[in-house]
Amino acid sequence: MKVALIQHSVKNSKDETLSKTVSMIKEASLKGANLVVLQELHQSSYFCIVEDPKNFDLANDFEEDLKFWASIAKEFGVVLVTSLFEKRAAGLYHNSAFVFEKDGSLAGKYRKMHIPDDPGFYEKFYFTPGDLGYEPIDTSVGRLGVLICWDQWFPEAARLMAMRGAEVLIYPTAIGWFEDDSKDEKDRQKSSWIDIQRSHAIANGLPVISVNRVGKEHDPSKLLDGILFWGNSFVCGPQGEFLHECGMDEELAIIKIDKKRTEEVRRMWPFFRDRRVDSYKDILKIYID
Amino acid sequence: MKVALIQHSVKNSKDETLSKTVSMIKEASLKGANLVVLQELHQSSYFCIVEDPKNFDLANDFEEDLKFWASIAKEFGVVLVTSLFEKRAAGLYHNSAFVFEKDGSLAGKYRKMHIPDDPGFYEKFYFTPGDLGYEPIDTSVGRLGVLICWDQWFPEAARLMAMRGAEVLIYPTAIGWFEDDSKDEKDRQKSSWIDIQRSHAIANGLPVISVNRVGKEHDPSKLLDGILFWGNSFVCGPQGEFLHECGMDEELAIIKIDKKRTEEVRRMWPFFRDRRVDSYKDILKIYID
Repeated sequence: MKVALIQHSVKNSKDETLSKTVSMIKEASLKGANLVVLQELHQSSYFCIVEDPKNFDLANDFEEDLKFWASIAKEFGVVLVTSLFEKRAAGLYHNSAFVFEKDGSLAGKYRKMHIPDDPGFYEKFYFTPGDLGYEPIDTSVGRLGVLICWDQWFPEAARLMAMRGAEVLIYPTAIGWFEDDSKDEKDRQKSSWIDIQRSHAIANGLPVISVNRVGKEHDPSKLLDGILFWGNSFVCGPQGEFLHECGMDEELAIIKIDKKRTEEVRRMWPFFRDRRVDSYKDILKIYID
Repeated sequence: MKVALIQHSVKNSKDETLSKTVSMIKEASLKGANLVVLQELHQSSYFCIVEDPKNFDLANDFEEDLKFWASIAKEFGVVLVTSLFEKRAAGLYHNSAFVFEKDGSLAGKYRKMHIPDDPGFYEKFYFTPGDLGYEPIDTSVGRLGVLICWDQWFPEAARLMAMRGAEVLIYPTAIGWFEDDSKDEKDRQKSSWIDIQRSHAIANGLPVISVNRVGKEHDPSKLLDGILFWGNSFVCGPQGEFLHECGMDEELAIIKIDKKRTEEVRRMWPFFRDRRVDSYKDILKIYID
Protein backbone atom coordinates (compact mmCIF):
# COMPACT_ATOMS: atom_id res chain seq x y z
CA MET A 1 0.00 0.00 0.00
CA LYS A 2 1.45 3.33 -1.09
CA VAL A 3 -0.64 6.12 0.36
CA ALA A 4 -0.64 9.82 -0.55
CA LEU A 5 -1.65 12.34 2.10
CA ILE A 6 -2.83 15.63 0.64
CA GLN A 7 -3.09 18.62 2.96
CA HIS A 8 -3.78 22.05 1.50
CA SER A 9 -5.45 25.35 2.29
CA VAL A 10 -8.81 26.40 0.88
CA LYS A 11 -8.70 28.66 -2.19
CA ASN A 12 -10.92 31.60 -3.24
CA SER A 13 -13.50 29.50 -5.05
CA LYS A 14 -14.65 25.90 -5.18
CA ASP A 15 -13.22 25.58 -8.71
CA GLU A 16 -9.84 26.81 -7.59
CA THR A 17 -9.83 24.52 -4.54
CA LEU A 18 -10.80 21.49 -6.63
CA SER A 19 -8.18 22.30 -9.18
CA LYS A 20 -5.49 22.45 -6.46
CA THR A 21 -6.65 19.10 -5.05
CA VAL A 22 -6.70 17.49 -8.48
CA SER A 23 -3.22 18.73 -9.33
CA MET A 24 -1.92 17.14 -6.15
CA ILE A 25 -3.76 13.85 -6.90
CA LYS A 26 -2.13 13.89 -10.33
CA GLU A 27 1.30 14.31 -8.78
CA ALA A 28 0.57 11.53 -6.27
CA SER A 29 -0.45 9.21 -9.06
CA LEU A 30 2.69 10.02 -11.08
CA LYS A 31 4.75 9.18 -7.99
CA GLY A 32 3.14 5.76 -7.70
CA ALA A 33 0.55 6.22 -4.95
CA ASN A 34 -2.30 3.71 -5.15
CA LEU A 35 -4.34 5.26 -2.31
CA VAL A 36 -5.02 9.00 -1.89
CA VAL A 37 -6.54 10.49 1.26
CA LEU A 38 -7.97 14.02 1.30
CA GLN A 39 -8.67 16.26 4.29
CA GLU A 40 -12.11 16.72 5.87
CA LEU A 41 -14.62 18.74 3.77
CA HIS A 42 -11.88 19.47 1.27
CA GLN A 43 -14.16 21.14 -1.30
CA SER A 44 -14.78 24.31 0.69
CA SER A 45 -13.79 26.36 3.68
CA TYR A 46 -14.57 24.80 7.05
CA PHE A 47 -18.06 26.35 6.98
CA CYS A 48 -19.06 24.95 10.39
CA ILE A 49 -17.10 27.84 11.89
CA VAL A 50 -20.50 29.57 11.97
CA GLU A 51 -24.17 28.50 12.07
CA ASP A 52 -25.65 29.87 8.86
CA PRO A 53 -28.56 28.14 7.07
CA LYS A 54 -27.25 29.45 3.72
CA ASN A 55 -24.28 27.09 4.09
CA PHE A 56 -26.52 24.10 3.34
CA ASP A 57 -26.30 25.35 -0.27
CA LEU A 58 -22.77 23.96 -0.27
CA ALA A 59 -24.34 20.50 -0.55
CA ASN A 60 -26.59 21.41 -3.49
CA ASP A 61 -24.22 19.87 -6.01
CA PHE A 62 -23.57 16.76 -3.95
CA GLU A 63 -24.58 14.32 -6.71
CA GLU A 64 -22.34 16.05 -9.24
CA ASP A 65 -19.51 16.09 -6.69
CA LEU A 66 -19.74 12.29 -6.42
CA LYS A 67 -19.48 11.96 -10.22
CA PHE A 68 -16.58 14.37 -10.33
CA TRP A 69 -14.46 12.52 -7.75
CA ALA A 70 -15.33 9.17 -9.31
CA SER A 71 -13.94 10.48 -12.60
CA ILE A 72 -10.78 11.73 -10.89
CA ALA A 73 -10.18 8.35 -9.19
CA LYS A 74 -10.56 6.68 -12.59
CA GLU A 75 -8.45 9.24 -14.48
CA PHE A 76 -5.50 8.84 -12.14
CA GLY A 77 -6.05 5.16 -11.31
CA VAL A 78 -6.05 5.54 -7.53
CA VAL A 79 -8.29 4.52 -4.66
CA LEU A 80 -9.55 7.89 -3.46
CA VAL A 81 -10.90 8.80 0.00
CA THR A 82 -13.01 11.96 -0.25
CA SER A 83 -14.81 13.87 2.49
CA LEU A 84 -18.07 15.47 1.36
CA PHE A 85 -21.09 17.38 2.62
CA GLU A 86 -23.76 14.78 1.86
CA LYS A 87 -27.31 15.91 1.08
CA ARG A 88 -29.48 12.87 1.77
CA ALA A 89 -32.93 14.48 1.71
CA ALA A 90 -34.45 17.91 2.22
CA GLY A 91 -33.16 19.06 5.59
CA LEU A 92 -31.10 15.89 6.17
CA TYR A 93 -27.33 16.14 5.79
CA HIS A 94 -24.29 14.12 6.81
CA ASN A 95 -20.55 14.64 7.07
CA SER A 96 -19.50 11.66 4.97
CA ALA A 97 -16.50 9.97 3.41
CA PHE A 98 -16.94 8.45 -0.03
CA VAL A 99 -14.30 6.01 -1.23
CA PHE A 100 -13.81 5.46 -4.95
CA GLU A 101 -12.11 2.50 -6.56
CA LYS A 102 -9.39 3.14 -9.16
CA ASP A 103 -11.88 2.32 -11.93
CA GLY A 104 -14.16 5.09 -10.71
CA SER A 105 -16.76 2.85 -9.04
CA LEU A 106 -17.98 3.65 -5.55
CA ALA A 107 -16.26 1.29 -3.10
CA GLY A 108 -18.23 2.43 -0.07
CA LYS A 109 -19.20 5.28 2.20
CA TYR A 110 -18.97 6.18 5.87
CA ARG A 111 -21.10 8.73 7.71
CA LYS A 112 -19.37 10.47 10.63
CA MET A 113 -20.77 8.92 13.78
CA HIS A 114 -19.49 11.33 16.46
CA ILE A 115 -20.42 14.94 15.78
CA PRO A 116 -18.67 17.76 17.65
CA ASP A 117 -20.13 21.06 18.66
CA ASP A 118 -18.13 23.74 20.34
CA PRO A 119 -17.39 27.38 19.54
CA GLY A 120 -16.18 27.56 15.92
CA PHE A 121 -17.00 23.90 15.25
CA TYR A 122 -20.82 23.97 15.08
CA GLU A 123 -21.24 20.59 13.40
CA LYS A 124 -24.37 19.52 15.27
CA PHE A 125 -26.19 22.30 13.41
CA TYR A 126 -25.27 20.86 10.01
CA PHE A 127 -24.83 17.11 10.30
CA THR A 128 -27.09 14.30 11.45
CA PRO A 129 -24.95 11.69 13.24
CA GLY A 130 -24.17 8.72 11.00
CA ASP A 131 -26.42 5.67 10.87
CA LEU A 132 -24.13 3.24 9.06
CA GLY A 133 -21.98 2.19 12.01
CA TYR A 134 -18.34 1.21 11.61
CA GLU A 135 -18.08 -0.82 8.40
CA PRO A 136 -14.66 -1.04 6.77
CA ILE A 137 -14.64 -0.43 3.03
CA ASP A 138 -13.11 -3.09 0.78
CA THR A 139 -10.87 -1.77 -2.00
CA SER A 140 -8.14 -3.03 -4.28
CA VAL A 141 -5.50 -1.74 -1.82
CA GLY A 142 -7.09 -3.29 1.27
CA ARG A 143 -9.89 -3.08 3.80
CA LEU A 144 -10.07 0.57 4.86
CA GLY A 145 -11.42 1.65 8.25
CA VAL A 146 -12.52 5.16 7.35
CA LEU A 147 -13.58 7.40 10.24
CA ILE A 148 -13.82 11.20 10.34
CA CYS A 149 -12.23 13.81 12.63
CA TRP A 150 -14.14 13.90 15.97
CA ASP A 151 -14.42 10.08 15.76
CA GLN A 152 -10.68 10.05 16.45
CA TRP A 153 -11.25 10.85 20.15
CA PHE A 154 -13.35 7.70 20.68
CA PRO A 155 -11.43 4.44 21.16
CA GLU A 156 -14.72 2.59 20.67
CA ALA A 157 -14.90 3.62 17.00
CA ALA A 158 -11.35 2.52 16.24
CA ARG A 159 -11.88 -0.76 18.09
CA LEU A 160 -15.06 -1.59 16.19
CA MET A 161 -13.41 -0.90 12.83
CA ALA A 162 -10.49 -3.12 13.81
CA MET A 163 -12.82 -5.87 15.04
CA ARG A 164 -14.47 -5.85 11.63
CA GLY A 165 -11.12 -6.50 9.99
CA ALA A 166 -10.01 -3.02 8.94
CA GLU A 167 -6.35 -3.20 7.85
CA VAL A 168 -5.74 0.50 8.34
CA LEU A 169 -7.60 3.38 10.01
CA ILE A 170 -8.06 6.59 8.02
CA TYR A 171 -9.12 9.96 9.49
CA PRO A 172 -9.86 12.97 7.23
CA THR A 173 -9.72 15.83 9.73
CA ALA A 174 -10.23 19.57 10.29
CA ILE A 175 -8.65 20.70 13.52
CA GLY A 176 -6.91 23.92 14.42
CA TRP A 177 -6.13 26.55 17.01
CA PHE A 178 -7.63 29.80 18.14
CA GLU A 179 -4.98 32.50 18.24
CA ASP A 180 -6.02 33.49 21.78
CA ASP A 181 -4.85 30.21 23.24
CA SER A 182 -1.42 30.15 24.88
CA LYS A 183 1.47 28.34 23.22
CA ASP A 184 1.31 25.69 25.96
CA GLU A 185 -2.38 25.09 25.35
CA LYS A 186 -1.76 24.85 21.59
CA ASP A 187 1.03 22.34 22.17
CA ARG A 188 -1.17 20.25 24.45
CA GLN A 189 -3.97 20.22 21.89
CA LYS A 190 -1.79 19.17 18.97
CA SER A 191 0.07 16.60 21.02
CA SER A 192 -3.14 15.03 22.35
CA TRP A 193 -4.59 14.92 18.83
CA ILE A 194 -1.54 13.03 17.59
CA ASP A 195 -1.35 10.82 20.67
CA ILE A 196 -4.96 9.66 20.67
CA GLN A 197 -4.69 8.55 17.04
CA ARG A 198 -1.37 6.77 17.59
CA SER A 199 -3.06 4.99 20.49
CA HIS A 200 -5.64 3.48 18.14
CA ALA A 201 -2.77 2.04 16.10
CA ILE A 202 -1.24 0.60 19.27
CA ALA A 203 -4.42 -0.75 20.89
CA ASN A 204 -5.47 -2.40 17.64
CA GLY A 205 -2.15 -3.25 16.01
CA LEU A 206 -2.76 -1.53 12.69
CA PRO A 207 -1.49 1.55 10.81
CA VAL A 208 -3.26 4.90 11.12
CA ILE A 209 -3.47 7.63 8.45
CA SER A 210 -4.66 11.10 9.41
CA VAL A 211 -5.02 14.06 7.03
CA ASN A 212 -5.69 17.55 8.35
CA ARG A 213 -6.33 20.93 6.71
CA VAL A 214 -3.76 23.76 6.76
CA GLY A 215 -4.09 27.53 6.76
CA LYS A 216 -6.04 30.22 8.55
CA GLU A 217 -9.78 30.43 7.88
CA HIS A 218 -11.88 33.38 8.99
CA ASP A 219 -15.19 33.55 10.81
CA PRO A 220 -17.78 35.43 8.71
CA SER A 221 -19.69 36.26 11.90
CA LYS A 222 -16.55 37.93 13.35
CA LEU A 223 -17.34 36.27 16.68
CA LEU A 224 -14.03 34.45 16.45
CA ASP A 225 -10.77 35.61 14.99
CA GLY A 226 -10.77 32.42 12.93
CA ILE A 227 -9.12 29.02 13.07
CA LEU A 228 -5.53 28.21 12.14
CA PHE A 229 -5.64 24.60 10.91
CA TRP A 230 -2.42 22.99 12.04
CA GLY A 231 -1.83 20.41 9.30
CA ASN A 232 0.56 17.83 10.72
CA SER A 233 -1.05 15.01 8.78
CA PHE A 234 0.73 11.77 9.60
CA VAL A 235 0.99 8.05 9.14
CA CYS A 236 2.01 5.68 11.90
CA GLY A 237 2.60 1.94 11.95
CA PRO A 238 0.93 -0.68 14.16
CA GLN A 239 3.07 0.19 17.19
CA GLY A 240 2.19 3.86 16.82
CA GLU A 241 5.62 4.59 15.32
CA PHE A 242 5.70 7.54 12.94
CA LEU A 243 6.21 6.69 9.28
CA HIS A 244 5.73 10.34 8.30
CA GLU A 245 4.71 13.64 9.87
CA CYS A 246 3.82 16.67 7.75
CA GLY A 247 4.37 20.25 8.81
CA MET A 248 1.92 23.15 8.81
CA ASP A 249 2.26 23.99 5.09
CA GLU A 250 0.62 22.49 2.03
CA GLU A 251 2.16 19.10 1.42
CA LEU A 252 1.85 15.98 -0.63
CA ALA A 253 3.43 13.07 1.25
CA ILE A 254 3.72 9.56 -0.13
CA ILE A 255 4.33 6.74 2.32
CA LYS A 256 4.69 2.99 1.87
CA ILE A 257 2.77 0.91 4.40
CA ASP A 258 3.69 -2.70 5.05
CA LYS A 259 0.42 -4.39 6.01
CA LYS A 260 2.27 -7.57 7.03
CA ARG A 261 3.60 -5.89 10.18
CA THR A 262 0.13 -6.11 11.75
CA GLU A 263 0.43 -9.88 12.08
CA GLU A 264 3.94 -9.62 13.60
CA VAL A 265 2.95 -6.93 16.07
CA ARG A 266 -0.26 -8.66 17.12
CA ARG A 267 1.66 -11.90 17.78
CA MET A 268 4.11 -10.10 20.05
CA TRP A 269 1.53 -8.11 22.03
CA PRO A 270 -1.70 -10.04 21.43
CA PHE A 271 -4.27 -7.66 22.87
CA PHE A 272 -7.11 -9.14 20.84
CA ARG A 273 -6.49 -12.50 22.54
CA ASP A 274 -7.04 -11.02 25.99
CA ARG A 275 -10.03 -8.69 25.79
CA ARG A 276 -12.41 -9.30 28.75
CA VAL A 277 -15.63 -9.04 26.80
CA ASP A 278 -17.49 -10.54 29.76
CA SER A 279 -16.72 -7.34 31.70
CA TYR A 280 -17.40 -4.58 29.15
CA LYS A 281 -21.20 -4.38 29.04
CA ASP A 282 -21.41 -1.04 30.88
CA ILE A 283 -19.62 0.59 27.93
CA LEU A 284 -23.09 0.64 26.36
CA LYS A 285 -24.16 3.22 28.95
CA ILE A 286 -23.63 6.97 28.84
CA TYR A 287 -22.26 6.94 32.38
CA ILE A 288 -22.37 4.58 35.34
CA ASP A 289 -24.10 6.26 38.26
CA MET B 1 -3.42 15.50 45.47
CA LYS B 2 0.33 15.13 45.91
CA VAL B 3 1.41 11.76 44.58
CA ALA B 4 4.71 9.95 45.11
CA LEU B 5 5.88 7.51 42.43
CA ILE B 6 8.36 4.97 43.74
CA GLN B 7 10.36 2.97 41.21
CA HIS B 8 13.18 0.74 42.40
CA SER B 9 15.03 -2.46 41.60
CA VAL B 10 14.49 -5.72 43.47
CA LYS B 11 17.02 -6.51 46.24
CA ASN B 12 18.60 -9.79 47.35
CA SER B 13 15.85 -10.72 49.79
CA LYS B 14 12.24 -9.82 50.49
CA ASP B 15 13.30 -8.07 53.73
CA GLU B 16 15.84 -5.95 51.90
CA THR B 17 13.36 -5.07 49.15
CA LEU B 18 10.66 -4.12 51.67
CA SER B 19 13.12 -2.05 53.62
CA LYS B 20 14.08 -0.13 50.47
CA THR B 21 10.41 0.49 49.63
CA VAL B 22 9.61 1.62 53.16
CA SER B 23 12.56 4.02 53.26
CA MET B 24 11.27 5.62 50.06
CA ILE B 25 7.72 5.84 51.46
CA LYS B 26 9.15 7.54 54.53
CA GLU B 27 10.95 10.08 52.36
CA ALA B 28 7.77 10.64 50.32
CA SER B 29 5.79 11.27 53.47
CA LEU B 30 8.39 13.72 54.81
CA LYS B 31 8.16 15.58 51.50
CA GLY B 32 4.40 15.96 51.85
CA ALA B 33 3.02 13.25 49.56
CA ASN B 34 -0.49 12.14 50.51
CA LEU B 35 -0.69 9.33 47.94
CA VAL B 36 2.06 6.77 47.27
CA VAL B 37 2.03 4.40 44.30
CA LEU B 38 4.32 1.35 44.15
CA GLN B 39 5.35 -0.70 41.14
CA GLU B 40 3.76 -4.02 40.16
CA LEU B 41 4.60 -6.99 42.45
CA HIS B 42 7.03 -4.78 44.35
CA GLN B 43 7.77 -7.34 47.09
CA SER B 44 9.80 -9.69 44.93
CA SER B 45 11.49 -10.22 41.61
CA TYR B 46 9.18 -10.41 38.63
CA PHE B 47 8.79 -14.17 39.15
CA CYS B 48 6.50 -14.62 36.12
CA ILE B 49 9.66 -14.61 34.01
CA VAL B 50 9.44 -18.39 34.38
CA GLU B 51 6.68 -20.98 35.02
CA ASP B 52 7.68 -22.62 38.29
CA PRO B 53 5.09 -24.03 40.73
CA LYS B 54 7.42 -23.25 43.64
CA ASN B 55 6.84 -19.55 43.01
CA PHE B 56 3.33 -19.84 44.44
CA ASP B 57 5.13 -19.94 47.80
CA LEU B 58 5.72 -16.21 47.33
CA ALA B 59 2.04 -15.73 48.22
CA ASN B 60 2.21 -17.82 51.42
CA ASP B 61 2.54 -14.75 53.62
CA PHE B 62 -0.14 -12.80 51.80
CA GLU B 63 -2.25 -12.14 54.94
CA GLU B 64 0.80 -10.86 56.82
CA ASP B 65 1.78 -8.74 53.82
CA LEU B 66 -1.61 -7.00 54.00
CA LYS B 67 -1.10 -6.22 57.69
CA PHE B 68 2.41 -5.00 57.05
CA TRP B 69 1.43 -2.51 54.33
CA ALA B 70 -1.57 -1.35 56.36
CA SER B 71 0.81 -0.52 59.20
CA ILE B 72 3.15 1.35 56.84
CA ALA B 73 0.27 3.44 55.41
CA LYS B 74 -0.73 4.33 58.97
CA GLU B 75 2.81 4.98 60.19
CA PHE B 76 3.51 7.47 57.40
CA GLY B 77 -0.02 8.81 57.09
CA VAL B 78 -0.37 8.24 53.34
CA VAL B 79 -2.85 6.57 51.04
CA LEU B 80 -0.83 3.64 49.73
CA VAL B 81 -1.34 1.69 46.48
CA THR B 82 0.36 -1.71 46.78
CA SER B 83 0.59 -4.51 44.23
CA LEU B 84 0.54 -7.99 45.75
CA PHE B 85 0.43 -11.67 44.86
CA GLU B 86 -2.96 -12.53 46.35
CA LYS B 87 -3.61 -16.04 47.63
CA ARG B 88 -7.39 -16.38 47.65
CA ALA B 89 -7.73 -20.15 48.17
CA ALA B 90 -5.65 -23.26 47.58
CA GLY B 91 -4.64 -23.09 43.92
CA LEU B 92 -6.42 -19.77 43.32
CA TYR B 93 -4.27 -16.67 43.00
CA HIS B 94 -4.67 -13.13 41.66
CA ASN B 95 -2.42 -10.24 40.69
CA SER B 96 -4.06 -7.60 42.87
CA ALA B 97 -3.72 -4.02 44.02
CA PHE B 98 -4.62 -3.26 47.63
CA VAL B 99 -5.17 0.36 48.58
CA PHE B 100 -4.75 1.44 52.20
CA GLU B 101 -6.14 4.57 53.76
CA LYS B 102 -3.78 6.81 55.74
CA ASP B 103 -5.23 5.39 58.99
CA GLY B 104 -4.22 1.90 57.90
CA SER B 105 -7.69 0.68 56.99
CA LEU B 106 -8.24 -1.12 53.69
CA ALA B 107 -9.83 1.33 51.24
CA GLY B 108 -10.37 -1.25 48.52
CA LYS B 109 -8.84 -3.77 46.16
CA TYR B 110 -8.61 -4.39 42.44
CA ARG B 111 -7.83 -7.72 40.76
CA LYS B 112 -6.00 -7.46 37.44
CA MET B 113 -8.59 -8.15 34.74
CA HIS B 114 -6.38 -8.57 31.66
CA ILE B 115 -3.65 -11.18 32.11
CA PRO B 116 -0.71 -11.32 29.68
CA ASP B 117 1.20 -14.37 28.62
CA ASP B 118 4.17 -14.21 26.35
CA PRO B 119 7.79 -15.37 26.63
CA GLY B 120 9.17 -14.08 29.95
CA PHE B 121 5.77 -12.84 31.12
CA TYR B 122 3.97 -16.10 31.95
CA GLU B 123 1.19 -14.54 34.00
CA LYS B 124 -1.61 -16.83 32.85
CA PHE B 125 0.17 -19.63 34.71
CA TYR B 126 0.01 -17.75 38.01
CA PHE B 127 -3.02 -15.48 38.04
CA THR B 128 -6.73 -16.06 37.60
CA PRO B 129 -8.20 -13.08 35.74
CA GLY B 130 -9.94 -10.66 38.09
CA ASP B 131 -13.62 -10.99 38.94
CA LEU B 132 -14.25 -7.60 40.55
CA GLY B 133 -14.58 -5.52 37.39
CA TYR B 134 -13.55 -1.88 37.23
CA GLU B 135 -14.58 -0.29 40.52
CA PRO B 136 -12.77 2.90 41.53
CA ILE B 137 -11.58 2.98 45.14
CA ASP B 138 -12.68 5.88 47.33
CA THR B 139 -9.95 7.37 49.51
CA SER B 140 -9.26 10.58 51.40
CA VAL B 141 -7.29 11.90 48.38
CA GLY B 142 -9.95 11.06 45.80
CA ARG B 143 -11.60 8.32 43.80
CA LEU B 144 -8.79 6.15 42.42
CA GLY B 145 -9.14 4.13 39.23
CA VAL B 146 -6.55 1.45 39.95
CA LEU B 147 -5.68 -0.88 37.08
CA ILE B 148 -2.59 -3.07 36.63
CA CYS B 149 0.01 -3.28 33.85
CA TRP B 150 -1.45 -5.29 30.91
CA ASP B 151 -4.80 -3.55 31.56
CA GLN B 152 -3.11 -0.43 30.21
CA TRP B 153 -3.36 -1.70 26.63
CA PHE B 154 -7.17 -1.90 26.80
CA PRO B 155 -9.07 1.37 26.32
CA GLU B 156 -12.18 -0.43 27.57
CA ALA B 157 -10.75 -0.75 31.10
CA ALA B 158 -9.79 2.92 31.31
CA ARG B 159 -13.16 3.97 29.93
CA LEU B 160 -15.12 1.90 32.44
CA MET B 161 -13.11 3.28 35.37
CA ALA B 162 -13.72 6.83 34.11
CA MET B 163 -17.43 6.13 33.59
CA ARG B 164 -17.64 5.08 37.23
CA GLY B 165 -16.24 8.42 38.31
CA ALA B 166 -12.53 7.67 38.78
CA GLU B 167 -10.69 10.97 39.22
CA VAL B 168 -7.32 9.53 38.25
CA LEU B 169 -6.09 6.30 36.64
CA ILE B 170 -3.23 4.45 38.35
CA TYR B 171 -1.17 1.66 36.77
CA PRO B 172 1.42 -0.30 38.79
CA THR B 173 3.49 -1.92 36.05
CA ALA B 174 6.30 -4.33 35.21
CA ILE B 175 7.50 -3.90 31.66
CA GLY B 176 10.94 -4.17 30.14
CA TRP B 177 13.10 -5.13 27.22
CA PHE B 178 14.92 -8.19 26.03
CA GLU B 179 18.50 -7.34 25.18
CA ASP B 180 18.20 -9.10 21.82
CA ASP B 181 15.72 -6.56 20.50
CA SER B 182 17.07 -3.78 18.28
CA LYS B 183 17.27 -0.22 19.58
CA ASP B 184 14.45 0.73 17.21
CA GLU B 185 12.22 -2.03 18.53
CA LYS B 186 12.99 -1.00 22.11
CA ASP B 187 12.13 2.61 21.31
CA ARG B 188 8.87 1.59 19.68
CA GLN B 189 7.90 -0.52 22.68
CA LYS B 190 8.61 2.17 25.26
CA SER B 191 6.99 4.87 23.19
CA SER B 192 3.84 2.83 22.61
CA TRP B 193 3.65 2.00 26.33
CA ILE B 194 3.76 5.70 27.19
CA ASP B 195 1.44 6.69 24.37
CA ILE B 196 -1.34 4.23 25.12
CA GLN B 197 -1.51 5.38 28.75
CA ARG B 198 -1.47 9.07 27.79
CA SER B 199 -4.33 8.27 25.43
CA HIS B 200 -6.48 7.10 28.35
CA ALA B 201 -5.92 10.48 29.98
CA ILE B 202 -6.95 12.21 26.74
CA ALA B 203 -9.97 10.04 25.86
CA ASN B 204 -11.32 10.32 29.41
CA GLY B 205 -10.10 13.76 30.48
CA LEU B 206 -8.34 12.69 33.67
CA PRO B 207 -4.76 12.35 34.97
CA VAL B 208 -2.83 9.08 34.65
CA ILE B 209 -0.15 7.77 37.02
CA SER B 210 2.04 4.87 35.93
CA VAL B 211 4.79 3.27 38.03
CA ASN B 212 7.19 0.75 36.50
CA ARG B 213 10.05 -1.38 37.88
CA VAL B 214 13.70 -0.65 37.10
CA GLY B 215 16.75 -2.87 36.78
CA LYS B 216 17.76 -6.09 35.10
CA GLU B 217 16.21 -9.32 36.39
CA HIS B 218 17.48 -12.75 35.38
CA ASP B 219 15.65 -15.82 34.17
CA PRO B 220 16.34 -18.80 36.48
CA SER B 221 15.54 -21.18 33.60
CA LYS B 222 18.25 -19.50 31.46
CA LEU B 223 15.86 -19.64 28.51
CA LEU B 224 16.00 -15.87 28.34
CA ASP B 225 18.86 -13.55 29.07
CA GLY B 226 16.51 -11.70 31.42
CA ILE B 227 14.42 -8.55 31.34
CA LEU B 228 15.65 -4.99 31.69
CA PHE B 229 12.76 -3.09 33.29
CA TRP B 230 12.80 0.35 31.77
CA GLY B 231 11.35 2.47 34.60
CA ASN B 232 10.09 5.68 33.04
CA SER B 233 7.25 5.97 35.53
CA PHE B 234 5.24 9.08 34.73
CA VAL B 235 2.28 11.28 35.51
CA CYS B 236 0.30 13.09 32.86
CA GLY B 237 -2.60 15.52 33.10
CA PRO B 238 -6.05 15.22 31.49
CA GLN B 239 -4.78 16.31 28.06
CA GLY B 240 -2.05 13.68 28.20
CA GLU B 241 0.55 16.38 28.98
CA PHE B 242 3.52 15.16 31.01
CA LEU B 243 3.70 16.40 34.59
CA HIS B 244 6.73 14.20 35.27
CA GLU B 245 8.75 11.48 33.55
CA CYS B 246 11.26 9.35 35.49
CA GLY B 247 14.40 7.89 33.99
CA MET B 248 15.65 4.30 34.13
CA ASP B 249 17.20 4.52 37.63
CA GLU B 250 15.65 4.20 41.08
CA GLU B 251 13.64 7.31 41.75
CA LEU B 252 11.18 8.88 44.12
CA ALA B 253 9.17 11.53 42.30
CA ILE B 254 6.58 13.74 43.95
CA ILE B 255 4.05 15.47 41.72
CA LYS B 256 1.11 17.74 42.48
CA ILE B 257 -2.05 16.94 40.56
CA ASP B 258 -4.78 19.53 40.12
CA LYS B 259 -8.01 17.54 39.92
CA LYS B 260 -9.98 20.65 38.92
CA ARG B 261 -8.45 20.59 35.42
CA THR B 262 -10.63 17.61 34.53
CA GLU B 263 -13.76 19.77 34.53
CA GLU B 264 -12.07 22.46 32.40
CA VAL B 265 -10.71 19.99 29.88
CA ARG B 266 -13.96 18.04 29.60
CA ARG B 267 -15.87 21.28 28.94
CA MET B 268 -13.54 22.21 26.11
CA TRP B 269 -13.48 18.79 24.44
CA PRO B 270 -16.62 17.09 25.78
CA PHE B 271 -16.11 13.53 24.59
CA PHE B 272 -18.42 12.08 27.23
CA ARG B 273 -21.27 14.18 25.80
CA ASP B 274 -20.89 12.61 22.37
CA ARG B 275 -20.36 8.87 22.85
CA ARG B 276 -22.57 6.87 20.46
CA VAL B 277 -23.60 4.18 22.92
CA ASP B 278 -26.33 3.09 20.49
CA SER B 279 -23.57 1.89 18.14
CA TYR B 280 -21.11 0.13 20.49
CA LYS B 281 -22.80 -3.18 21.24
CA ASP B 282 -20.39 -5.27 19.14
CA ILE B 283 -17.59 -4.28 21.55
CA LEU B 284 -18.99 -7.10 23.70
CA LYS B 285 -17.79 -9.61 21.08
CA ILE B 286 -14.32 -11.08 20.72
CA TYR B 287 -14.31 -10.26 17.01
CA ILE B 288 -16.90 -9.44 14.37
CA ASP B 289 -16.84 -12.07 11.65
